[in-house]
Amino acid sequence: MKLSKFNRYVVLGLAISYVGIAPVSSAYAGQLLSKNTQQLVEHPNLVNTFEDVMAMREAIKVSGRFQTEFLNKQARLDKAIEQPLNVPYPKDAGGGYTHEVHKNNYRLMYDAGILYQITQDPKYANYVKDVLFEYAKLYPTLSLHPEVKSSNPGQLFWQGLNEAVWLVHTIQAYDAVLPHLSESERETIEKGVLEPVALFLSEESPQTFNKVHNHGTWATCAVGMTGYVLDKPEWVEKALYGLDKSGTGGFMRQLDELFSPNGYYNEGPYYQRYALMPFVTFAKAIENNQPERKIFEYRDQVLLKAINTTAQLSYNGLFFPINDAIKDKGIDTIELVHGIAIAYGITGETGLLDIAKQQGRVILTGDGLQVAKALDKGQETDYQFKTQAFGDGASGNEGAFVVLRSDSSKKASVVTFKATSQGLGHGHFDKMGLSFYDNGAEILTDYGAARFLNVVAKFGGRYLPENDSYAQQTVAHNTLVVDETSHFDGITEVGNQHHPKLELFANDKQVKLASASIDTAYQGVGLTRTTALVAVPEENIDWVIDIFAAQSKTQHQYDLPFHYSGHFIEANFDYQAHAESLNALGTKSGYQHLWLTAQAQPSDEQQIRKITWLNDNGRFYSLNAVNSPNLEVLFTRAGANDPNFNLREDKAFILRAKGQTDYQFVSLLEAHGEYNPSKEYTLKSKSSIKSLSYEQQGAVHMVYVERDDNSQFVIAYHNQSGQSQSFVVDGHTYALNQTVKLFKLAKK
Amino acid sequence: MKLSKFNRYVVLGLAISYVGIAPVSSAYAGQLLSKNTQQLVEHPNLVNTFEDVMAMREAIKVSGRFQTEFLNKQARLDKAIEQPLNVPYPKDAGGGYTHEVHKNNYRLMYDAGILYQITQDPKYANYVKDVLFEYAKLYPTLSLHPEVKSSNPGQLFWQGLNEAVWLVHTIQAYDAVLPHLSESERETIEKGVLEPVALFLSEESPQTFNKVHNHGTWATCAVGMTGYVLDKPEWVEKALYGLDKSGTGGFMRQLDELFSPNGYYNEGPYYQRYALMPFVTFAKAIENNQPERKIFEYRDQVLLKAINTTAQLSYNGLFFPINDAIKDKGIDTIELVHGIAIAYGITGETGLLDIAKQQGRVILTGDGLQVAKALDKGQETDYQFKTQAFGDGASGNEGAFVVLRSDSSKKASVVTFKATSQGLGHGHFDKMGLSFYDNGAEILTDYGAARFLNVVAKFGGRYLPENDSYAQQTVAHNTLVVDETSHFDGITEVGNQHHPKLELFANDKQVKLASASIDTAYQGVGLTRTTALVAVPEENIDWVIDIFAAQSKTQHQYDLPFHYSGHFIEANFDYQAHAESLNALGTKSGYQHLWLTAQAQPSDEQQIRKITWLNDNGRFYSLNAVNSPNLEVLFTRAGANDPNFNLREDKAFILRAKGQTDYQFVSLLEAHGEYNPSKEYTLKSKSSIKSLSYEQQGAVHMVYVERDDNSQFVIAYHNQSGQSQSFVVDGHTYALNQTVKLFKLAKK
Repeated sequence: MKLSKFNRYVVLGLAISYVGIAPVSSAYAGQLLSKNTQQLVEHPNLVNTFEDVMAMREAIKVSGRFQTEFLNKQARLDKAIEQPLNVPYPKDAGGGYTHEVHKNNYRLMYDAGILYQITQDPKYANYVKDVLFEYAKLYPTLSLHPEVKSSNPGQLFWQGLNEAVWLVHTIQAYDAVLPHLSESERETIEKGVLEPVALFLSEESPQTFNKVHNHGTWATCAVGMTGYVLDKPEWVEKALYGLDKSGTGGFMRQLDELFSPNGYYNEGPYYQRYALMPFVTFAKAIENNQPERKIFEYRDQVLLKAINTTAQLSYNGLFFPINDAIKDKGIDTIELVHGIAIAYGITGETGLLDIAKQQGRVILTGDGLQVAKALDKGQETDYQFKTQAFGDGASGNEGAFVVLRSDSSKKASVVTFKATSQGLGHGHFDKMGLSFYDNGAEILTDYGAARFLNVVAKFGGRYLPENDSYAQQTVAHNTLVVDETSHFDGITEVGNQHHPKLELFANDKQVKLASASIDTAYQGVGLTRTTALVAVPEENIDWVIDIFAAQSKTQHQYDLPFHYSGHFIEANFDYQAHAESLNALGTKSGYQHLWLTAQAQPSDEQQIRKITWLNDNGRFYSLNAVNSPNLEVLFTRAGANDPNFNLREDKAFILRAKGQTDYQFVSLLEAHGEYNPSKEYTLKSKSSIKSLSYEQQGAVHMVYVERDDNSQFVIAYHNQSGQSQSFVVDGHTYALNQTVKLFKLAKK
Repeated sequence: MKLSKFNRYVVLGLAISYVGIAPVSSAYAGQLLSKNTQQLVEHPNLVNTFEDVMAMREAIKVSGRFQTEFLNKQARLDKAIEQPLNVPYPKDAGGGYTHEVHKNNYRLMYDAGILYQITQDPKYANYVKDVLFEYAKLYPTLSLHPEVKSSNPGQLFWQGLNEAVWLVHTIQAYDAVLPHLSESERETIEKGVLEPVALFLSEESPQTFNKVHNHGTWATCAVGMTGYVLDKPEWVEKALYGLDKSGTGGFMRQLDELFSPNGYYNEGPYYQRYALMPFVTFAKAIENNQPERKIFEYRDQVLLKAINTTAQLSYNGLFFPINDAIKDKGIDTIELVHGIAIAYGITGETGLLDIAKQQGRVILTGDGLQVAKALDKGQETDYQFKTQAFGDGASGNEGAFVVLRSDSSKKASVVTFKATSQGLGHGHFDKMGLSFYDNGAEILTDYGAARFLNVVAKFGGRYLPENDSYAQQTVAHNTLVVDETSHFDGITEVGNQHHPKLELFANDKQVKLASASIDTAYQGVGLTRTTALVAVPEENIDWVIDIFAAQSKTQHQYDLPFHYSGHFIEANFDYQAHAESLNALGTKSGYQHLWLTAQAQPSDEQQIRKITWLNDNGRFYSLNAVNSPNLEVLFTRAGANDPNFNLREDKAFILRAKGQTDYQFVSLLEAHGEYNPSKEYTLKSKSSIKSLSYEQQGAVHMVYVERDDNSQFVIAYHNQSGQSQSFVVDGHTYALNQTVKLFKLAKK
């Protein structure tokens, strides 16, 4: 049994030589007697252990990924630490000068700490010491940051969040160089800055520290790790169980509530990867200091699931951009580099190495070394992307984020179905929103966040006003808008109280299907959406089936937008282009930001209304929507009422039905053909769908598809689990012995 | 001395065993006595020689690029030739069904021919024979294609151009399988289809065959190669010197006129790579049959220069998209794969292997084998991209296409300056247009062609109406528009008669500069543009200096558009956004296709007007334009009056000055900073240019630049070649001993 180090050194105390104060250079440089107690505390003792350090010292002597990363890091750091120290008085908001300087300082200190441990070169330890001396002078002079705006204020930074991140890095740097410091140097630093920051983040910021939210996790991680290093078990306890140690707040509560049982984070993948960092960092520190807590076993290994889920929630290297998400973020984000390394260190799963390889960088930690060595040996195996319903909420029953994948590869066809809860303040009003990815690209798109991260000219680099007025609104998503009003009237607090119900989830070989419903997004209107990803057998073709039903006793206008990426090719119906002047589509709920570029009036000329576009990935996509006498089609482009040109000019088709009570949108998105201007050929630029319909026979739902070559298909499903069902087409009876199945009928 | 094969086999005739009719399998399978004469003709004897075939037969036994390509090709072909033969009656235009089938047939025959030679497996020869038997039945029944539209009609295809391409491939396939065919089979094929097609392309299409144009080159290549294979020296002579053999038409005349002395093709790189194919193919056949013609030596190696120039006219793998160009086309185009292979076969230049490696494919020819072997051995060296003025016109003195490069790498900063002649019917009205490329991306953009190649729904895959009404018009380019009218009133025939004069070209280490002028683009308005690419020493910064002067005695409106790729970030002046409704900027000359999205009235608040945008490449770009009391700024986006949504919605800033006689636009485009949302940092998002001005002191032109850090620069140049000049700033005299030089002055 592995003992807690807190306990271990009490036991082993006398067997270890006391090294005393720095500078030292023996192999035991990392160990010293804590100054505050008679316990021995080992340094480093957070993410890296002394054993890790010894292994890294060997690894840099051998060529390979780890050595390369080390040499690169050292070259960059050596250049950086030659610059004059720069610890300016805090002044600027995110992206501003002092903000970036303080961020840079903690990164440099962190790197210098690790390099000190690996190289034992005192210049790195002295650098950390010198910088921290400056902070020890500065910090006591500070009060609240002049640019404070959020509910989580800081002193060094405009947000306490950044302050916590600063301490998470800085305490690791301090931990690494501590053996090099004299007692008085340690006292200067600890009393001058480390303790004050930790106290600011905990006792003086209880609203954040006790909050079950990622800001709280950064704070508890920072304070808890500081507790380990400064040997303040009380701080560790508060970090784990809240300021009152009752467990109503703190890291363990965050672990209980912020992730669902299968590791889905309430705010979605963009914030999941950010939240992940303090979770895995603090957990690793807990594991190294108090293995008896079995933190990685906690809640059926929820942390490992969270790491894996973060990777699962990506397509072709980028995270699904639901909610407030910067769309460029992907699996190579440093947080997930740490996460994957830690997970690999624990599980040894070789699929994780595939992700690590795509990340293209390794980190200078003990786990990073294991990853680097395994990659050097080519031990990676394909990471298995899965069709999965990620239950939302602490118990996993507050809706779900559903990912339907045609296969396990990273460029497969993928439907995401956002039947999740609101996702707090960064959540979008997009209940049961749909996205589609194919052939490496996003096809039915999510706007993500309206933000230019850290670009001062763009609203200080913060979320833009258009994030509220457009990006979060329902019409900016591929889901139903009733009466030009967003879900929950666009009020986050209301949204937080409700979530859709996942009615059905089926993972058949040829059909992946999910169905969900919600009756709280709009008063008096029930919404049910069923979506399926269908792989046509023996053909390299994928269909997305989409059935969106609204039930109401009163009349409404129903709008179903399909935001798409690509160039419009053709429609099979007449439309009136607004060729000479453009106006905004509406006045509120995001509609004021959409230019109406064309529209088609209701017409019964076609059984299906068909719109084709061409994505930059070289494939054609056709939306086939069952026509009805009431169905209008609007063509839009974002950018209206946007005087600062903050929005991307994304395009959409909106299916609209006015004055309806119960209504159903039935559509099929077909991926087809290839446009290859480089090799000068074009294949199957025409959609092959001739006819589409939906009906119910008893408990069986049936989607009927006919193609131009007269081939016929039925996608049939039901939700009477365990019961066998049947349906009839053209006098033939077909048995349905599973939840969902694709039937290829005889040609007409 | 290497003898012509025409002559060689007369000499060697009796020494070679007569093999007679197929099937045969000896090492001499490739040689047989011509049926028409007593000369011996060797087969294959076009691009591949029998020696090439012997080498390829050995090469497929060894693992490497060539074997891989062979196995891939064989696997695809084996699958394809199992399908039923399909030689439909011609019906469809480009992109349509029968068009694509006939294209596919010649590709399959070509591949089968090569595979027959390499494997000696008769199934490949039989496939070619069977297909040609079908064509021999079909072709005599044809008259002009039902979809004929161009001045170059076809029978199998809507354009004679495609028919020539068909024969270029088919004659090579026939040449390859000829040894396998009986005399009667040969007669069926030759009389049924090969001779009729060759006659159709020559005697029956004199207007194309004799034309000095790439359509003519395809025709002469097809007919000339058919002459070699069918042993009709008369056809070869006509191909080389025109139907009347006078030399006023034909391949040699095309070689004289279509390329400039340094290998620039009048229509620009997109058509250059297309035109290249018949040039290098026929030339290679000439070289193999009649080496005494020294075709690759002709005109100071103009063909090799043309191949090299095609590669030079690219950025990050894609061709500069001037004139009618599909922007996805790049150096991996099959025509340049052939071109590079042939050039490498002749010169052995290892820089060409760098291009070949980027092309990512090798071809199954003798030269392709040499490339594959060299790449297998890693013999490639960096291809040297050059700063160069490519003189236009047969004598190289009809203007020039100027490429200024910061260094020789493929992602360097590059300015292109289109001071060329019109470029015939595919030419755009963009005299002295500018483009800028940086960090792998196109920054100041050229629309290219408005066309979706072979996408039937988009105007049959042909050039769209908007190609004429927008893409070719002056306002769609980064050059000056006078009075909202295109150069030469938008009349190609007028444009063809004029060209700018290249006044100055200088390639200094820090400054690459070109200047050109034209006084025929507009009546009574002289235009002079000087542009320079400046590398600021010891800083990783590039500037584009641009001075555009108009001289006129009467008042005009001058518009200078800068089409850009990226997201608008900020301007340093007030502008009125058209946030609630949009209208077209004008009514003609392309202006009807521009939405006016914002505008700024003249104002003297700033010494420079500054506009910053962010490209997807992660870098910021700031256009700094010297302000004047009359300078307006318009923001536009393409897409107005485009009811079928044929245009991309590209964006531009237009600098406008109304009611001016002589006027000068002086600007500096600065590339700066980095936006990295993945790693969450943003650097230098603000432009650093504080002040900009231009003046003349005697013969010296001076551009003065001051930055926010008070650093000062002067770019000085003159065109008094050989003379030393000087200029004065702040009382200091500076000597200018070269054409252009960057001076870094003392800080202010």
